[in-house]
Amino acid sequence: MDLASLATGTGSRILLVVIDGLGGLADREHGTELEEAATPNLNRLASEGVTGLLEPVGPGITPGSGPGHLALFGYDPLEFVLGRGALSAAGLDVELHPGDVAARGNLCTLDADGTVVDRRAGRISDDEARRVVARLSEAVKGVEFHHEKGHRLLVVFRGEGLDPRIGDTDPQTTGVPPLEPRPLDPAAAPTAELVAAKLAEVHHALVGEPAANGLLLRGFDTHRELPPFGDRTGLRAAADAVYPMYRGIARLLGFEVLGPPVDLTDQVRLLEKHREDADYFFVHVKDADAAGEDGDRAAKIAAIERVDEAIPDLLAALQPGVIAVTGDHATPSQMAAHSWHPVPVVVHGPRCGRDDTDRFGERWCRAGGLGIRPSVQLLPILMANAGHLAKYGA
Amino acid sequence: MDLASLATGTGSRILLVVIDGLGGLADREHGTELEEAATPNLNRLASEGVTGLLEPVGPGITPGSGPGHLALFGYDPLEFVLGRGALSAAGLDVELHPGDVAARGNLCTLDADGTVVDRRAGRISDDEARRVVARLSEAVKGVEFHHEKGHRLLVVFRGEGLDPRIGDTDPQTTGVPPLEPRPLDPAAAPTAELVAAKLAEVHHALVGEPAANGLLLRGFDTHRELPPFGDRTGLRAAADAVYPMYRGIARLLGFEVLGPPVDLTDQVRLLEKHREDADYFFVHVKDADAAGEDGDRAAKIAAIERVDEAIPDLLAALQPGVIAVTGDHATPSQMAAHSWHPVPVVVHGPRCGRDDTDRFGERWCRAGGLGIRPSVQLLPILMANAGHLAKYGA
Repeated sequence: MDLASLATGTGSRILLVVIDGLGGLADREHGTELEEAATPNLNRLASEGVTGLLEPVGPGITPGSGPGHLALFGYDPLEFVLGRGALSAAGLDVELHPGDVAARGNLCTLDADGTVVDRRAGRISDDEARRVVARLSEAVKGVEFHHEKGHRLLVVFRGEGLDPRIGDTDPQTTGVPPLEPRPLDPAAAPTAELVAAKLAEVHHALVGEPAANGLLLRGFDTHRELPPFGDRTGLRAAADAVYPMYRGIARLLGFEVLGPPVDLTDQVRLLEKHREDADYFFVHVKDADAAGEDGDRAAKIAAIERVDEAIPDLLAALQPGVIAVTGDHATPSQMAAHSWHPVPVVVHGPRCGRDDTDRFGERWCRAGGLGIRPSVQLLPILMANAGHLAKYGA
Repeated sequence: MDLASLATGTGSRILLVVIDGLGGLADREHGTELEEAATPNLNRLASEGVTGLLEPVGPGITPGSGPGHLALFGYDPLEFVLGRGALSAAGLDVELHPGDVAARGNLCTLDADGTVVDRRAGRISDDEARRVVARLSEAVKGVEFHHEKGHRLLVVFRGEGLDPRIGDTDPQTTGVPPLEPRPLDPAAAPTAELVAAKLAEVHHALVGEPAANGLLLRGFDTHRELPPFGDRTGLRAAADAVYPMYRGIARLLGFEVLGPPVDLTDQVRLLEKHREDADYFFVHVKDADAAGEDGDRAAKIAAIERVDEAIPDLLAALQPGVIAVTGDHATPSQMAAHSWHPVPVVVHGPRCGRDDTDRFGERWCRAGGLGIRPSVQLLPILMANAGHLAKYGA
């Protein structure tokens, strides 16, 4: 569906609040984190609005952050593909050119045998990580290291004709050594050799570091072009996100990227300041996902409750015609990882209709007016509710 | 979605129990057969797992057995097409070559006017049918007759350039004569003439038979190639089915075909014996469909209850990580035929989540956590639940 061809050019403001990793997993002992969180403001939206469940990529498919967000922005994530390297680069305002290759780097802790014992270098502080990244930039030439946040950095191999078809070196588990950078296509063999040589220099340079003595790479990618969100929808979009990667994906799609804000309070302030500057506002909040990935159920519940508390402020700041709250994927704390489980969504606005659901949570949203549907269907529903879509056909 | 590209190569065993024709039709007097059956074991799975409804081919579309099973195995039945002749041939280990044409044959009873009075020749015994098939093989040359089960046989026309686009001669009802084999494309006219000539010989040869004095043909088809299940999923699959046609479709997809077993008890034994030999086990049970086609409501309920009783044994034999129970289509006894009605499904495993449904049956599954969805979506959900799918995208 070509939404831009139906764009009215009028309509009210849309606020999309993405609680990263919102979805959970109910088991014998517990409901999902959202079901057990105290969320009076989200419950009010659910009670007055319509609810449902979203499947970001497809049934059974566990989405990465890229596909999860592309889907919410109306891009079919099976059609549009983004590597994490390209996302991180965009988030850091590091421009990639055709021929360059970028990857997400995670500082990690290796033991004496070279086995990964902590994939996040003990949740290293930003200050410490910046010091380590400076040390790498000094010691290893021909590669760019850009600190992102915590243990995360962006690693860029600049070159002519480098090939991003390289397998991750991040083994995604502990107790094993990092993987070798493996070419996924014969044409990528020279790039894989270059990456292996540079990683050897990296590990040499980090000898003696107490926590961050290793580097894992994943999501090798190169420059990508995506059709701008504005061309596809007729909407001016703005992104209000603390984490670089989410600003990055928004920038790749041509959103105006606000701030950067430092926290949720700052995000509220930015919304108020830029209220008139866009039609579609994307607010991203990371903490629930981080807590889920840590397997910390209580922290995930608390993170959800903090977003709930901010809902009145977000609404007052932006005064949107339509608000939707959902997640980009599930991150059940029992799994300490992203998962394929459907994610609850609530849509609230004067024309959203009503269902019998009056609490925001998976088991209640399941019976909601939106049903279970692909995340990519959310955008046109929001546009319609906000009056941005004209009639199709005579 | 290319599931094989996400295959983890690890994960627990999956058990798919297909109760053929499981779905039913609730009316003013009755719930569906499943709703009225006593199914304590299936109810326990529903209570602990998640439930939903599956549409095998599409809304309003009544599936044959081929499309119903292809969908459950993750093959879009509108993209992948299999005639019954090709299925039966595969089930009997009869190899078809390009240029051959095969059809399902049903021995039937004709009255003196040549009108069909029983489409199943009085549910003829296997022994009797084998005698009739031997008589046909003796009398009619240039055609192969392979007995399948009961009144069913496989009829193969060997040749150069035969064309399978021939209409069924089975009128699908009684009180009318068999249809003429009609070419569905002008290019199939010579094949249609050959079929008509051979059917005349068949009916001549069967003069004097008390029950099986006619032969109805349907599902003309030729050799087909389907992409192997293992290539599409990374899973080793095994089929545990009494009826040849279901072993046949599994063999066409590259499943290991166990046995053949003679009954459900034997199927349990095979599961235990081959527990380590595959990742994905397909158990097929026919009786509910046969009873539904006979319009025998009580027999269909009893057939469902027999599967319910076997559930603990199936689980003990295989010890799967994930079990799903569903049907390939509905066969409401009020209709004495396949139908388009959605089919209940239950998925049970440690990460399946939970819904509020605690009985297995259409009216309760409708509110379940899986929603109403195409049958083709079941496979990735099972793979995800069993840990066979990695994350998609960074």
